[in-house]
Amino acid sequence: MEDQQSTTKIEAALYLIPVELSDVPIDAVLPSGNAAIVRGIKHFIVENVRSARRFIKRCDRSINIDDLTFYPLNRHTAATEAAGYLAPLVAGEPMGVISEAGCPAVADPGADVVALAQQRGLRVKPLVGPSSIIMGLMGSGFNGQSFAFLGYLPIDNAARTKAMHDMERRIVRDDQTQIFIETPYRNNALIEQLVATLPPTLRLCIASDITGAEEHIVTHTIAQWRQLPKPDCNKRPTIFLLYR
Amino acid sequence: MEDQQSTTKIEAALYLIPVELSDVPIDAVLPSGNAAIVRGIKHFIVENVRSARRFIKRCDRSINIDDLTFYPLNRHTAATEAAGYLAPLVAGEPMGVISEAGCPAVADPGADVVALAQQRGLRVKPLVGPSSIIMGLMGSGFNGQSFAFLGYLPIDNAARTKAMHDMERRIVRDDQTQIFIETPYRNNALIEQLVATLPPTLRLCIASDITGAEEHIVTHTIAQWRQLPKPDCNKRPTIFLLYR
Repeated sequence: MEDQQSTTKIEAALYLIPVELSDVPIDAVLPSGNAAIVRGIKHFIVENVRSARRFIKRCDRSINIDDLTFYPLNRHTAATEAAGYLAPLVAGEPMGVISEAGCPAVADPGADVVALAQQRGLRVKPLVGPSSIIMGLMGSGFNGQSFAFLGYLPIDNAARTKAMHDMERRIVRDDQTQIFIETPYRNNALIEQLVATLPPTLRLCIASDITGAEEHIVTHTIAQWRQLPKPDCNKRPTIFLLYR
Repeated sequence: MEDQQSTTKIEAALYLIPVELSDVPIDAVLPSGNAAIVRGIKHFIVENVRSARRFIKRCDRSINIDDLTFYPLNRHTAATEAAGYLAPLVAGEPMGVISEAGCPAVADPGADVVALAQQRGLRVKPLVGPSSIIMGLMGSGFNGQSFAFLGYLPIDNAARTKAMHDMERRIVRDDQTQIFIETPYRNNALIEQLVATLPPTLRLCIASDITGAEEHIVTHTIAQWRQLPKPDCNKRPTIFLLYR
């Protein structure tokens, strides 16, 4: 059985392979088909080699890691170097992209190598996995017909307050849910600032540890959050959503 | 084994249960843990009763559909009626939300019932599944740190042209990927209009039949698309992405 698995033959493409967001059994958050694809790949472009190795072992302990080649991809990887990474795919070998957590190329460095693959007419195949953006949106009860993910809000206080008022305007004018994140150790400070800055009728959803044992996805109006004890999100992966 | 499965005991929550986007084996696109949760639920709020029954049978053929209660949710469901649907959950029974395809509450009617659950302080649990928005974004090579999903563009020609120029402005000013959809029989006309209206340097990704046998996710500049044969997207589920 294991021998059979390790010889899986798959189509040559750049597979975008999602990773769990939390410490849960892999079959709770990833289709079993993803592991079958991982078994068919020898060349992986990865955000972090150590954690990618561990992820591959979680997919299938029988995979021999020493047979695999890893190409590190991060903010320091030069564009020319990243272009060279695609040589095996150009030669007809399937390749994988693995990021630290969640979906590659969404809010992480994978997008550049996908853009290179698209430029060269290479096939790109995204796989299914957990996205805190989509799962937070699903759980919020907010408008899923129109939404924006903004990444991090600015750090500077004046710029940040302005960003909050910009979001408020887009919610009212465009009927668009606004989604954003913060560096985890500043989550609690952000919550205080949102609650102090935004109008009482807007709704704020705080979604922490999505898919994890401590998952907590709660929506209240700003007026309600002012009265309620705030969740402690210090250093916990959290996504924030705003809507009217 | 089947008897054991049918007695799965799960936490009382409103589970948001994604459905396949295409005609593929379920284990290619949904975690096996989702089927275990479906087995533990007797009350389903659904966009379409017939297709929800078929989906549940695909999860586990041993589930007895006649033991289940279905609550139809669509644009015609009154808010008061939808509120009544949550009675089993209020009484401590797990419930599920199932939409036609993809993730409930993202670009479909599920969001209102999630908002009602949040208002009443009921637990909401999104599950992992395929999202054409996220998978299109992953495959496009575009900015995943900032993006907006706009739903359908306006039908009226002048309003639609204005919407295209608004997207162009947001790409340049906010560095934000713009994502949108069209009624499937108008996909080809939209492609012609995008290519005729937008500046040559912008990039357009056309992502069709995501996860399906005919999956086709291709990014080119508008200038390149003007030269190339366009893919035939007539009546094929397609998502469009724009970026610089």
